[in-house]
Amino acid sequence: MTETAPRSPDALIVLPVRGIGEVTPGTALAGVIWDAAPWLRDGDVLVVTSKIVSKAEGRLVAVPPADGPERDAARDAALAAETARPVATRGPTRIVQTHHGFVLASAGIDASNVDPSHLVLLPVDPDASARKLRADLRELSGRDVAVVVTDTMGRPWRLGLTDVAIGAAGIAALRDHRGEVDAYGNDLFITQLAVIDELAAAGELVKGKTDQVPVAVVRGFLPRSADPAPDGEGARPLIRDAESDLFPLGTAEARADGLRAAATLPDGPLVGGAPVTDEELTAALGTLPDIGGVRWSLGGDESGVVGTAEDALTLGVAVHRLRCALWAEGIASAWAPGIDGSDDAVAVRVTVSRRGASPDPAT
Amino acid sequence: MTETAPRSPDALIVLPVRGIGEVTPGTALAGVIWDAAPWLRDGDVLVVTSKIVSKAEGRLVAVPPADGPERDAARDAALAAETARPVATRGPTRIVQTHHGFVLASAGIDASNVDPSHLVLLPVDPDASARKLRADLRELSGRDVAVVVTDTMGRPWRLGLTDVAIGAAGIAALRDHRGEVDAYGNDLFITQLAVIDELAAAGELVKGKTDQVPVAVVRGFLPRSADPAPDGEGARPLIRDAESDLFPLGTAEARADGLRAAATLPDGPLVGGAPVTDEELTAALGTLPDIGGVRWSLGGDESGVVGTAEDALTLGVAVHRLRCALWAEGIASAWAPGIDGSDDAVAVRVTVSRRGASPDPAT
Repeated sequence: MTETAPRSPDALIVLPVRGIGEVTPGTALAGVIWDAAPWLRDGDVLVVTSKIVSKAEGRLVAVPPADGPERDAARDAALAAETARPVATRGPTRIVQTHHGFVLASAGIDASNVDPSHLVLLPVDPDASARKLRADLRELSGRDVAVVVTDTMGRPWRLGLTDVAIGAAGIAALRDHRGEVDAYGNDLFITQLAVIDELAAAGELVKGKTDQVPVAVVRGFLPRSADPAPDGEGARPLIRDAESDLFPLGTAEARADGLRAAATLPDGPLVGGAPVTDEELTAALGTLPDIGGVRWSLGGDESGVVGTAEDALTLGVAVHRLRCALWAEGIASAWAPGIDGSDDAVAVRVTVSRRGASPDPAT
Repeated sequence: MTETAPRSPDALIVLPVRGIGEVTPGTALAGVIWDAAPWLRDGDVLVVTSKIVSKAEGRLVAVPPADGPERDAARDAALAAETARPVATRGPTRIVQTHHGFVLASAGIDASNVDPSHLVLLPVDPDASARKLRADLRELSGRDVAVVVTDTMGRPWRLGLTDVAIGAAGIAALRDHRGEVDAYGNDLFITQLAVIDELAAAGELVKGKTDQVPVAVVRGFLPRSADPAPDGEGARPLIRDAESDLFPLGTAEARADGLRAAATLPDGPLVGGAPVTDEELTAALGTLPDIGGVRWSLGGDESGVVGTAEDALTLGVAVHRLRCALWAEGIASAWAPGIDGSDDAVAVRVTVSRRGASPDPAT
């Protein structure tokens, strides 16, 4: 669900909701929030830390309270269960894609703000949690609010964590500027703003990490409409699928993937693919400073060495180095022993074509 | 500059600053902001879109206004000048690290909200821009505000853009929770919140992309102190250096890097490095479904083939495939023709050790 930008709001107020006590499995969240914030109004956006949603929903895993191998093993098991796909690992850091589709350190599993004998998992379906809280609040209070469920997240390239949305109801995840024209007549290329992430961030500014302010209210962003907005698609529209993402894997993991691709490069024959120019070949081979002292002549000619089987062994290594260098630059290749090969002289024929038609074995 | 979290604020107000007209090179920003927001108070955080800072500072590049190869070339030249390091490329998308250290699509160069004959670059030093605006405003108005200079940014894994801070003055970039203990006695592992990014996001919610609201004010986050805060370190503490980042390169770029490492794998000899267990070897070789039908016996034994030079060629290819597979799993190797090699029978000796001591040629 996206919505075309209206005029920007006149002002927002961001209010902490204090006095929400301990939340445990079965706590009726709507009730404790309404008790703590009887001043809620139609159109308010309720920004709710996922931690209390998870605790109310009983998304807890029992673990040995003392640090040690047993606690680590229980934690690893919980992480494995919450992980759809590993993304990057370094030291104790495990960044994974969860079953929801979010990419988070430790799958969002957290040991803070819970007694030491439990870990807190993310809600199973944070959008459903947001819808339920919204519906419960409407029933209890008559107020029509939007709900954003948040988690605290690290990100590449920038230090420091920020709160982002992992669930939502009654509000569009994205504000759409496509089709708008600026004062100079330019089409806007900045297209979609992740407003529920920005609301999550605004809410975090008045929440505390330790002083029990797990809920904030942003007032003024949505109109005080008489007609309740539909629940909408939740936070799901913010999930970028791995195929369209330029960073689906950590750099170290992707490098290892490239090396595995090198190990298993198909021998050929070449199927499809556009021709490769001499310039492209030269550029690709420029990355090979000196491979076995072999001078390559590609595209039909043979590059021969005469001599012993030991020379042939070295030539074989060089052939594969060459093919890896070509593949790195998007050039597929096939090789075959030359037709003049004999016990005393061996030759190799390497043929090339542009990658693209053939599947990438690294993916 | 970080600061230990005080009690969370009682409430924030986020106000748009309307009526800031056209900004051109030489516009005195403090003057137009003070004219538009004479209600500014001590302790307000001024959230300023970098676009108007850049325009005021004359960070414009003249380009042919019509789409076509000349405009593209001028744009490419501007991008190259702003780029410290390419990060990821796909189709027309160029994600780069700028000279500031920020990772941004097109180095933050923008063609919106400027006449079509110019592109807007980011400020040369957004922290200095923030400090100057803060000082100018203090001189003009007597008000002590903090300044956050923002840009709109995409991010991995999540769709939709958000505003983040690229410069700051008078406010700590990070709020530090290290050393805090939650209500259960757990040390907090969530350590540092990027509050100036969250302030940038909160400000964006009241700014428009096309309706000329390039400045917002966040009131209530900082105290109305009689003592002006120091300018501090600006937004610089948010820059994660590439070495400590798990995502310094796009996945495709890192895979290609792995393939280039495969092409240029050092032949040996091995220097340093811990021994490798049989289990680790088996796991590494498990990634090789069938390389040339060669059965490997590593760690001192030879794997021999008897036959023609053509067989030796195939063995050479297989040796390099094997070494790539090992390197992918963190195992360095060296190879040498076996001592029993002759014209009729060739053997290879592959030795291995744990990577780590030896430098990674891929980095």
